[in-house]
Amino acid sequence: MRVGSDKRANLAVVDRLVREAAERGARMVALPELFFWGGRREDEFEAAESIPGPTCDTLATLASELGVYLIGGSILEKAPEGAKVYNTCALFEPSGELIDVYRKVHLFDVEIVDRVSVRESDTRRPGSDMTVVACDSVPVGLAVCYDLRFPELFRQLIDRDAALIFMPSAFTFATGAVHWEALVRARAIENQVYFIAPNQCGRGGSGVHNYGNSMIVDPWGTVLARAGEGDGIIMADVDLDYLKKVRQEIPCLDHRVLRG
Amino acid sequence: MRVGSDKRANLAVVDRLVREAAERGARMVALPELFFWGGRREDEFEAAESIPGPTCDTLATLASELGVYLIGGSILEKAPEGAKVYNTCALFEPSGELIDVYRKVHLFDVEIVDRVSVRESDTRRPGSDMTVVACDSVPVGLAVCYDLRFPELFRQLIDRDAALIFMPSAFTFATGAVHWEALVRARAIENQVYFIAPNQCGRGGSGVHNYGNSMIVDPWGTVLARAGEGDGIIMADVDLDYLKKVRQEIPCLDHRVLRG
Repeated sequence: MRVGSDKRANLAVVDRLVREAAERGARMVALPELFFWGGRREDEFEAAESIPGPTCDTLATLASELGVYLIGGSILEKAPEGAKVYNTCALFEPSGELIDVYRKVHLFDVEIVDRVSVRESDTRRPGSDMTVVACDSVPVGLAVCYDLRFPELFRQLIDRDAALIFMPSAFTFATGAVHWEALVRARAIENQVYFIAPNQCGRGGSGVHNYGNSMIVDPWGTVLARAGEGDGIIMADVDLDYLKKVRQEIPCLDHRVLRG
Repeated sequence: MRVGSDKRANLAVVDRLVREAAERGARMVALPELFFWGGRREDEFEAAESIPGPTCDTLATLASELGVYLIGGSILEKAPEGAKVYNTCALFEPSGELIDVYRKVHLFDVEIVDRVSVRESDTRRPGSDMTVVACDSVPVGLAVCYDLRFPELFRQLIDRDAALIFMPSAFTFATGAVHWEALVRARAIENQVYFIAPNQCGRGGSGVHNYGNSMIVDPWGTVLARAGEGDGIIMADVDLDYLKKVRQEIPCLDHRVLRG
């Protein structure tokens, strides 16, 4: 989805898309990074919310009404002290209960001449903990956008038995056109996981042009579903027997000898 | 190149291709994994050589005659004790001197039903050390084939300032068609290095059908050169100013906070 600076409008899109996904049979639904609001850097503190808070309440209600796991992309989360906020993914179970959060660890401070100029750390603070949480007893790992460039993060999720990894993103067009597919597929292949990467599309309220091309990749690296550059829903089935087969055929996770 | 069980024939191909590359202006030339011999598992011990030894002498002479760095793919190296051999890449400088070796750390023990059945550890032993060596004061890292699936290995090369990584390979067709490009490009992108991956092609003396598609990728992830499924030479220029620019624009190597 494309994300503008009107929270109510963004949440209306979320409501429509999540309902449609559930109607089409989705049991887990994931939103992109910062689905709730995209605007000027100087307005971020005001846009930030607590967790739980208004946007999380909306997601919790939606999850419980539809009976789905809802991976809440990310929102800006007010921190206990100071003016800098976290970029936080909250995960809701079908009861509507918030079961865990992941606070983005790697902040996007990038200056690509004439193309991308973002200093996430100006207004945001990094998290420090990895998150793997059981959903129907399947370990699910979380990451956000720029984390994609750090393979060591995903190894920590694998060390905690992740079988699915969700990575809500707002990956830019300038970097995404060259890097997105290779890195997303590589993370799925080297970690032999289902890798689900919902990405913002279009030019959002932050002014950044995002790449879209949300992807779902299986543990063999096959692209099961891929979005275009507009908004919409992509879906795929997860087959844990297949994941087990791939891990038996190429036991590279067991072959690791360098732990850091 | 395709590799058969006749050492002399393989070395004749090497001689022809390395001379042609040097004539076309190459200053560094890399061969694929096990360029010197491919045959039955039970003949490996007999095919193995010491380092230095006959095959290395041939490479040393070629390097010094042509005045090139020669990354000697890999050969089977007799170990001090026992019947298992190392899979070793030896690097020669333009003087002909052997300046360092890398012994493959991750052995390919894989059983993909009806497609690939290889147990490298039956006849070979793993190395345990990473290798980064200065060539014209540029740090060059080495890896071999199956190592590609282990991002943590490349992080260790980066920690030692590698700017170029050579990865001689005999990557199979069955896995290469799905995994090779994504993983090779991801290693270049996430480590912001020139990544040079010469791969065996065709069905060699070992009976395995290799993927070919040797690649040279720049630190932005752009494929500078790519071979087909037959033998031949691919070439590209290395631009260390460009590497520096990429690392400044997206300083993800400096943004690492998880060290393993």
